[in-house]
Amino acid sequence: MRILLSNDDGVMAPGIECLYEHLSEHYEVTVIAPDRNCSGMSNALSLHHPLRISKTEKGFYAVNGTPSDCVQLGVNSGFFEEPDIVVSGINDGPNLGDDTIYSGTVAAALEGRHLGLPALAVSLCGKQDLHFETAALLTVDILKSLENHPLDTKQILNINVPNLPIEEIKGIIATRCGKRHRAETMVEDTDPFGNQIFWYGKLGDGFDAGEGTDFHAVASGYCSVSPLSTDMTVHQQISSMNEWLSK
Amino acid sequence: MRILLSNDDGVMAPGIECLYEHLSEHYEVTVIAPDRNCSGMSNALSLHHPLRISKTEKGFYAVNGTPSDCVQLGVNSGFFEEPDIVVSGINDGPNLGDDTIYSGTVAAALEGRHLGLPALAVSLCGKQDLHFETAALLTVDILKSLENHPLDTKQILNINVPNLPIEEIKGIIATRCGKRHRAETMVEDTDPFGNQIFWYGKLGDGFDAGEGTDFHAVASGYCSVSPLSTDMTVHQQISSMNEWLSK
Amino acid sequence: MRILLSNDDGVMAPGIECLYEHLSEHYEVTVIAPDRNCSGMSNALSLHHPLRISKTEKGFYAVNGTPSDCVQLGVNSGFFEEPDIVVSGINDGPNLGDDTIYSGTVAAALEGRHLGLPALAVSLCGKQDLHFETAALLTVDILKSLENHPLDTKQILNINVPNLPIEEIKGIIATRCGKRHRAETMVEDTDPFGNQIFWYGKLGDGFDAGEGTDFHAVASGYCSVSPLSTDMTVHQQISSMNEWLSK
Amino acid sequence: MRILLSNDDGVMAPGIECLYEHLSEHYEVTVIAPDRNCSGMSNALSLHHPLRISKTEKGFYAVNGTPSDCVQLGVNSGFFEEPDIVVSGINDGPNLGDDTIYSGTVAAALEGRHLGLPALAVSLCGKQDLHFETAALLTVDILKSLENHPLDTKQILNINVPNLPIEEIKGIIATRCGKRHRAETMVEDTDPFGNQIFWYGKLGDGFDAGEGTDFHAVASGYCSVSPLSTDMTVHQQISSMNEWLSK
Repeated sequence: MRILLSNDDGVMAPGIECLYEHLSEHYEVTVIAPDRNCSGMSNALSLHHPLRISKTEKGFYAVNGTPSDCVQLGVNSGFFEEPDIVVSGINDGPNLGDDTIYSGTVAAALEGRHLGLPALAVSLCGKQDLHFETAALLTVDILKSLENHPLDTKQILNINVPNLPIEEIKGIIATRCGKRHRAETMVEDTDPFGNQIFWYGKLGDGFDAGEGTDFHAVASGYCSVSPLSTDMTVHQQISSMNEWLSK
Repeated sequence: MRILLSNDDGVMAPGIECLYEHLSEHYEVTVIAPDRNCSGMSNALSLHHPLRISKTEKGFYAVNGTPSDCVQLGVNSGFFEEPDIVVSGINDGPNLGDDTIYSGTVAAALEGRHLGLPALAVSLCGKQDLHFETAALLTVDILKSLENHPLDTKQILNINVPNLPIEEIKGIIATRCGKRHRAETMVEDTDPFGNQIFWYGKLGDGFDAGEGTDFHAVASGYCSVSPLSTDMTVHQQISSMNEWLSK
Repeated sequence: MRILLSNDDGVMAPGIECLYEHLSEHYEVTVIAPDRNCSGMSNALSLHHPLRISKTEKGFYAVNGTPSDCVQLGVNSGFFEEPDIVVSGINDGPNLGDDTIYSGTVAAALEGRHLGLPALAVSLCGKQDLHFETAALLTVDILKSLENHPLDTKQILNINVPNLPIEEIKGIIATRCGKRHRAETMVEDTDPFGNQIFWYGKLGDGFDAGEGTDFHAVASGYCSVSPLSTDMTVHQQISSMNEWLSK
Repeated sequence: MRILLSNDDGVMAPGIECLYEHLSEHYEVTVIAPDRNCSGMSNALSLHHPLRISKTEKGFYAVNGTPSDCVQLGVNSGFFEEPDIVVSGINDGPNLGDDTIYSGTVAAALEGRHLGLPALAVSLCGKQDLHFETAALLTVDILKSLENHPLDTKQILNINVPNLPIEEIKGIIATRCGKRHRAETMVEDTDPFGNQIFWYGKLGDGFDAGEGTDFHAVASGYCSVSPLSTDMTVHQQISSMNEWLSK
């Protein structure tokens, strides 16, 4: 099985190196990742400038673009052999609840799915003393399971791993995305030249974070696996909408 | 009612001007939009550099960031009075099917919804001789209807308008997102210095574009309105996944 | 006479508008300027991505690039009629002493000279209540004088104007570039996510700012005109260097 | 002696690695270089966004900015011990004649000089089968010579090395900057979406490339060393200009 491995922290990030080492024991792995940190890049595509590929000392491919660009190049450029599956990560930090919509890690997986391939996004929910190996081992486990339980063609898996040694992980459970409180108010400041600037504030804590959510699973020591859809339509809403729209 | 109006084509685009003119006849409207074309930017957030706001001759606010950044500034910075609703558009071109995931127009609406506000994204499905006025008039109509049919707190409306004079529009219908064929293979080229580069190819045509889809509605002369969810979880999948994950 | 007018503050800056209005009373003027503020951009060229030209409501051309890119497009792309002279400005702030090396305003003029055209850079030395009209009127005067005193083919003029009403300007004098004290130590800070960042500090004051310098002229109420060379070689140094290098 | 080593090809470029290896045999060397290729960046400063420093596996410092930013951080931020000299390179390609004005390699050296330090820029004049070692060995030689012939406080040395094995280098000579023919007309093209774009064309060949120039030295197998001034004023022009300006 041929894996396209990408991420959003950039081709030099420790998370992608650790995952590469574990995956390449079992599979043929090509790493194609952004040349810079692309956290928060979501599904952005570089439509306005051309993409360039360079090769690092480790044989990884670095791209002057976004996670989605990397997957497009890996699958749809003819430059690489087409992979069987896309894996994205290991992200340095969580992608829980509404983080998913901004995450470049999740976006790389979604891009794979849009191009017809099964896809996983893997994130490690810690800030320091990161147990990337735990996330790598669990990813290999889940890839093995997927051999018998193929992913639906409109879904990806969003995996969030507690920052613990592997022996302290309590299990793997399927979850729904929770929801965060609104992020803190943006931070107003002035630059050293006296101009007004704004920074994003800290993320909100979990708001909808009860049992069944990804927040709850990770907080309880479980590896959380959320099935995400590539189709955002709220199908059950359509008929009632048609009643009032047609008036 | 106070409207925050944004887009992804940039603060100087004709689509946002036309929509501003129509909306401001009925509502209090603040325009906050990117200073450059941000098509394809999706929900990207500028986490790595600070944002700056400047004011154009027309009194619009230009931001050195993405559509999502503009909505965050409009709602969550304390710099502007908090709006009641977010409107994004009129996009110069369609946002049909899986376009929605890459669209900065749709992203601005999603950002509004994540911040607790109802939100609409409006796109005009044409390439030239653009009837922005048609899209503006339909947006005003739909805003009026929403007064009696408030949006669910986890949904936005994605509106796509055929490029026709208003009198040729056959009606407004609720649709689900269709799906495009995979985009054409990326275009390989060399820059004038002999280096290999890659460009995105043309979008695929509609693949799942039958009755009920946004593609079909627009092609048939209807204004398409798709309810999109801010929660990507495939809820009905969770229990069956838990069976095989726990093994 | 056909003038190519550019700047580094961007196509929407008030300084370029004011200069356009005055120059176009006497000459044929084409405005080609960056679509964003490019202060501090020096002679940077966009070698890694292609350039795009769009037209503003006023008929100015906006480019997704640097001041030097704008002049290259204006002179060397075949898209515009070739100009007779390049004028850059009016910069919002001084370009005195070693500022010249970082200035996008000066760079646009240097680019014109490298492409074979006489060129001027014009800056207004104020921070608020800016008298752009003074700088525009003096630029017209100097252009008239140049008709009888053509610029050397390896030189440009760097013009700095005191921020005063035209009737308070004491005259126009030729100066040499002074030198600033080293800029303040860079400002260390943390972004809201706890990461270490550095900003440039404030510019140093004049260090070599005595009589004969551009600093002194402006501080004394004179319009300063410094002849700058496109050739940085220290010719008088070459023979002594050859003695010790050859050992 | 403590050396600050930077470049414009980026922290991962082979030229800076080779120079690091040779310099660190003799001196204490800190590498601070851009995280991306910054060719053509000239003296650009990142005034509009803050700088971030990260450390690579080799212990080099990567900066999200320009060559000039790297030198400012190395000398004027308090984050590093202040160096005694700035060395920039080895550039992958020549910096001859008017290239110097656009070169990020030369800019890093100029920035060092502006901050009060002696500074060298080193470039290798080849396209393939690059003899970086030749340039590294010559740089060490020149650094040794400088111990007895300190650089003037307003000058840097711009060194261009022929792409030959060290034993084929005929010597080291001091030169003046030559001049290139105007670059080829910009290349007009359309992107895959049908939009007009422009690329820079190929560099012009040497135009003023006769004996005494850097072009001529390199073409003849000599290492070229040009003394460049940080002061662009044409001093001998000032008095004649004052005659006609004052009228």
